[in-house]
Amino acid sequence: MSTVFNLLIKVFYDGTLFHGSQRQPRLRTVEGEVIKAFRNIGLNFEKFVASGRTDKGVHALSQVFMLTVRDVGEEKVEEVIGKVREELPVDIIIWGYRIVNFEFNPRFNAICRRYVYVRYARGFNVHKASEIAKRFIGKHDFKCFSSYLYSQVPEFISTERTILGFNIFKTDDIVIFDIVADSFLRQMVRRIVSFTELYVAGKKSIKDLNTAFKGICEVADVKPAAPKNLILFDVTYPFSFKVISESVREMKEYWMKKSTKHMLFKFLYEHVDFKYDKPVFKQFSLT
Amino acid sequence: MSTVFNLLIKVFYDGTLFHGSQRQPRLRTVEGEVIKAFRNIGLNFEKFVASGRTDKGVHALSQVFMLTVRDVGEEKVEEVIGKVREELPVDIIIWGYRIVNFEFNPRFNAICRRYVYVRYARGFNVHKASEIAKRFIGKHDFKCFSSYLYSQVPEFISTERTILGFNIFKTDDIVIFDIVADSFLRQMVRRIVSFTELYVAGKKSIKDLNTAFKGICEVADVKPAAPKNLILFDVTYPFSFKVISESVREMKEYWMKKSTKHMLFKFLYEHVDFKYDKPVFKQFSLT
Repeated sequence: MSTVFNLLIKVFYDGTLFHGSQRQPRLRTVEGEVIKAFRNIGLNFEKFVASGRTDKGVHALSQVFMLTVRDVGEEKVEEVIGKVREELPVDIIIWGYRIVNFEFNPRFNAICRRYVYVRYARGFNVHKASEIAKRFIGKHDFKCFSSYLYSQVPEFISTERTILGFNIFKTDDIVIFDIVADSFLRQMVRRIVSFTELYVAGKKSIKDLNTAFKGICEVADVKPAAPKNLILFDVTYPFSFKVISESVREMKEYWMKKSTKHMLFKFLYEHVDFKYDKPVFKQFSLT
Repeated sequence: MSTVFNLLIKVFYDGTLFHGSQRQPRLRTVEGEVIKAFRNIGLNFEKFVASGRTDKGVHALSQVFMLTVRDVGEEKVEEVIGKVREELPVDIIIWGYRIVNFEFNPRFNAICRRYVYVRYARGFNVHKASEIAKRFIGKHDFKCFSSYLYSQVPEFISTERTILGFNIFKTDDIVIFDIVADSFLRQMVRRIVSFTELYVAGKKSIKDLNTAFKGICEVADVKPAAPKNLILFDVTYPFSFKVISESVREMKEYWMKKSTKHMLFKFLYEHVDFKYDKPVFKQFSLT
């Protein structure tokens, strides 16, 4: 049995109160808190690597981190994870793990990433949005849909990415942008979402998109959609993780509490109106 | 034109960050903030009276306050209100006003009050709830449905109240308790809501309700429903108010922002599940 191994962990976090995922001195970050939790249990580890980064305010259901653990038998992994879970703040939950070999890199060995963006459905034309969405699919230069928009891209960096899937669909009251790519540039999802919304509003065209793919970025100069509605939904690897069912329950509870908190204001926003000097229900929308 | 008059104001507030509506030294309360705003504009006023109180965490769409204004012509009222609105914090919005005569009392001259309570609909049987709701209607002793539950009620206080209407209905995802009475005892709505929920769950009976109406309170000993989902919806007077349409817009915007904030977590809670080691959409619920 090995006493040095690479541990992969699958992590949910609520990005609201973090300065992004990546470690930064003196700022509360996801990596910073996870590393602190592992340190707190006195574990001997090194080389903490992420599958990627998320910006300030962006959430994750399945962020993946890797660390090299020393002086602990592989049979103790579950116990170690259990202790770390107790050290973590409520807005970070480890819900899966796996031991991988030494050549493994969580960034380069990921098959693809999936992001989900959510917005209100009111007045949004999903059919029109889907027209533009399918034009994003495939291998393109996404420089104009990234934070590189107006900067010189270093030669050793490629801004080509392959979008494998981009579906937009609706529930009763929200629109979901569901997008899968080999990997993403910084701000890429949020800029694609904004561009799509502007296309639906008639302010961007398919011609503009093709121009942007040619590296002429002015037409793609959009305000990135709000990070608070974006989730790193999954990072896919060619194997599965061990799921901690108690963590899954914890996550559900976390979401339920967060969602309940503002139910009343959602209700007001959607169902109450003012006629004369009284608040009234919009009767037509109630069953 | 009079230079002393009684001014009634209609006020929306988000109760989240207040220690209730009633003035209290050193605590942030709705009355405290409203009084401060009127003081800040240098207005000469006295006798600040509310239509009633709301507990910590409870919201209002139409709370009504009265103050006696001196040394300002009635023709200046709109201007005065405009200045006060600018002094108020974002979670209090004056959206209506009216001048009334000197005998007027906002508490005793109110015809009735309407409260609305909101909760998630999942698994809630509205038909069963309506069975018990109609039993609450009419004139009853509501001591057991108030904070007087286990205390001696002073002789000069009556705990009889008349419930004029109690409707429970459902939208796609939430249940609304809509209750109107001449006036309410402290915690009364929240205790009625809890009792109703326990009836739906099969834990309270109509017999228990009748026992409680006789003043035997053990059977009505319930945990009051969470204040954060309760709104003082309206206070009805035998006249109308002048509505400030800009304030109505401000309120709508306030609710929209609050509601948007947690849309993502609502989405997660309702539409995402874990199968094996991946988050997946509950496809059946998406259109």
